[in-house]
Amino acid sequence: MTSKPVAAKTNDEAQIRQLNEDWRSALANRDLDKLAQHYSPDVLYFDAVPPYQHRGVAAYRRTWEQMLPHLPPRISVEQRDLEITTSGDLAVSHCLTRLVNADTNETAAAGWVRVTVCYQRQQAAWRVIHEHVSVPFDPMTGKAAFISEP
Amino acid sequence: MTSKPVAAKTNDEAQIRQLNEDWRSALANRDLDKLAQHYSPDVLYFDAVPPYQHRGVAAYRRTWEQMLPHLPPRISVEQRDLEITTSGDLAVSHCLTRLVNADTNETAAAGWVRVTVCYQRQQAAWRVIHEHVSVPFDPMTGKAAFISEP
Repeated sequence: MTSKPVAAKTNDEAQIRQLNEDWRSALANRDLDKLAQHYSPDVLYFDAVPPYQHRGVAAYRRTWEQMLPHLPPRISVEQRDLEITTSGDLAVSHCLTRLVNADTNETAAAGWVRVTVCYQRQQAAWRVIHEHVSVPFDPMTGKAAFISEP
Repeated sequence: MTSKPVAAKTNDEAQIRQLNEDWRSALANRDLDKLAQHYSPDVLYFDAVPPYQHRGVAAYRRTWEQMLPHLPPRISVEQRDLEITTSGDLAVSHCLTRLVNADTNETAAAGWVRVTVCYQRQQAAWRVIHEHVSVPFDPMTGKAAFISEP
């Protein structure tokens, strides 16, 4: 289920793919500094859980700092359906992501979540300026509609 | 609460603002053709409610076709915190949006939702290639965490 290597169509797309791989490795290694290193100082982050928005890279880093103790000791970061579009100094990507307990292969946290990431080239380096992570909710019950098997 | 006019920094940003205004008017007027007119044929849409994704402009249009009967007769479309970034043939925007019963001023549907929209210039015209709409969920209860007053 781990995303297979895909040939990037452009050099910019290759760079965005690398940023994504860096992020996955950083999370699997619980390395908060590396996890946040490609985020813009004023990133606007819509997380899957409250509060409904976070502003700034320090706030982004803190969400993961608070999340890590709730995750299994060894995690792998799975992604599927990753699509990247680039032009000029902007790039956008979307995919499904989930965290998996690397010892038991069981899904951790909320299971698959929808992820949209917007990147901007700032002083020759790509930075995440906006990220939106979510699951839908069932309007009949008001409950989160977790994505069991996409 | 309706978003105030904001001076666009570039011509592209002005065009994206106009698309957004067109979309708001189309929804208030329940005009499904106009609502969908700026969407790419292969748009990937993450809606606030299941299913977790829709592919294509026809599927996007259908979600609103199914939603309209559940909305009050007269609605206004409020937005806040709209930010737009453009470069080359890409643009990204994010904001909070809610539907309001224009007769009673009561919030309709889920209240404020988080909205991220990615646009691509296709044959000289901007098209929505990806949209992500959501509310967060409370991991303790598994319930949607509606955004009461941002």
